[in-house]
Amino acid sequence: MKTHLECIPCFARQALEMARMGTEVESLQKEIARESLKIIIEADFETPPPLLAQKVSSLIRRMTGIADPYAKSKRRQNRFAMELYPEMKEIVRTSRNPFETAARLAIAGNIIDMGIYPGIDHAHAERSIREALDAPILAETLQSFHDAVQSASSILYLADNCGEIVLDRLLVEELPREKVTFAVRGGPILNDATLEDAIETGITEIVVVIDNGDDAPGTWLPQCSDEFRRRFESADVIISKGQGNYETLDGEAGNIFFLLRAKCPVIARAVGCPLGSAVLMKNKK
Amino acid sequence: MKTHLECIPCFARQALEMARMGTEVESLQKEIARESLKIIIEADFETPPPLLAQKVSSLIRRMTGIADPYAKSKRRQNRFAMELYPEMKEIVRTSRNPFETAARLAIAGNIIDMGIYPGIDHAHAERSIREALDAPILAETLQSFHDAVQSASSILYLADNCGEIVLDRLLVEELPREKVTFAVRGGPILNDATLEDAIETGITEIVVVIDNGDDAPGTWLPQCSDEFRRRFESADVIISKGQGNYETLDGEAGNIFFLLRAKCPVIARAVGCPLGSAVLMKNKK
Repeated sequence: MKTHLECIPCFARQALEMARMGTEVESLQKEIARESLKIIIEADFETPPPLLAQKVSSLIRRMTGIADPYAKSKRRQNRFAMELYPEMKEIVRTSRNPFETAARLAIAGNIIDMGIYPGIDHAHAERSIREALDAPILAETLQSFHDAVQSASSILYLADNCGEIVLDRLLVEELPREKVTFAVRGGPILNDATLEDAIETGITEIVVVIDNGDDAPGTWLPQCSDEFRRRFESADVIISKGQGNYETLDGEAGNIFFLLRAKCPVIARAVGCPLGSAVLMKNKK
Repeated sequence: MKTHLECIPCFARQALEMARMGTEVESLQKEIARESLKIIIEADFETPPPLLAQKVSSLIRRMTGIADPYAKSKRRQNRFAMELYPEMKEIVRTSRNPFETAARLAIAGNIIDMGIYPGIDHAHAERSIREALDAPILAETLQSFHDAVQSASSILYLADNCGEIVLDRLLVEELPREKVTFAVRGGPILNDATLEDAIETGITEIVVVIDNGDDAPGTWLPQCSDEFRRRFESADVIISKGQGNYETLDGEAGNIFFLLRAKCPVIARAVGCPLGSAVLMKNKK
């Protein structure tokens, strides 16, 4: 999907947040803010928003000399979600439909997104879990999602954020695991999950994990590795988590199911749902 | 007060909103958005935020050829507030302390700010009025505000937005009216009140109204007219409404009482109150 004018204030906010994660020196933050605005001015609005976030992130790494400004915060998010995991696993185990419950919890996991909500606490997480469990998701879409993964001989699971991947694990555990490849970003960007996070949260112990070869906060195929692209093209089913993956894969062919929370008006409009909705949808192509 | 880094995303949002008010042509909106970002990049962060909003507004007028993109919306806001007026007047009239109630309603009026809340409805207004009536305002500050206006031989009332000025009228009516000068902006900027709005809402019928000679969305003395500055310097009491006036007058000498709603984290921090608070405070100098 294209970048919208409405994305501009959001980029400015995100750039500032990244700058603050990267340095406490205010004059440098200001310099970064200015350089980020220059990047936004020169941006190609025909490409999806994650490509611009990638450019800003790269600028900040260069200007601060910090390879991963979000490192500490990502550790914290993973630990926070791992504390939730046993309780969540119990909810899945004792539910009438563990597959559906796990899918809903994977969507709930998408709220643990420092890129949008800078602070996260237990009450907020509990609330969002409750919301996702109660969200109106089409029974028909759920059934076709279930049927698709059951009959697939290969499933590619595209992760999104740290913390969230712990809740993704719940869904992965309800899939035919030997057929699943779990893909993370190829390098640190915002609080997105990388190989390190998959190891930290134990995902690598239960399923094959690869990285996509790129550090955009999404899945922009022209920039992904050849190996990733081959997996993408040959997968029977693709499970795509979060807005960044949706923004970069919307319009792609393939059997893609998007699981996300519509966190901004642009996405809510594109999906056709109220702002903040828990979404499970099949791609249109 | 200085402009903060946190103001940048807010300027970007405001510039986009102004662009949309000025034109429906998306390519022009995009061009305006880019030019606005250039203004932000070159901004002097040592001056208060309203000066940057003024520059962006001037750019938009130049690029769209529309002298007042907010004209229609301002008419609507005035009419909306005028419909509320009789009910509000009755609340003041029947209250135990009409001066305090009118002061609180003048603060409530500060929520009618299209610059921050693009949509306003009756329920929202009622809620904010209720909030302002119940807000914890120091009895001591209220008393010294009351005493100051009672003993003053000249009062300068600095208005803020359209719609809001109708609720300012309630407070003006509780002041020794013959001593009051009511000041509006010198030209159209955002939804700020100008002479036209003072006429439309009948303020000119009850009190002397002047404009400040400048179209910044605040009161930046170095840019105001000589006449206004004279009035400012000679006033015994200045009643300053809203954030824009606070941002430009914070630190000024004089007997200034600020009445506002703290709508953004930067202001809330500066004032030392929770975000969204109804504020009545005396300047520190």
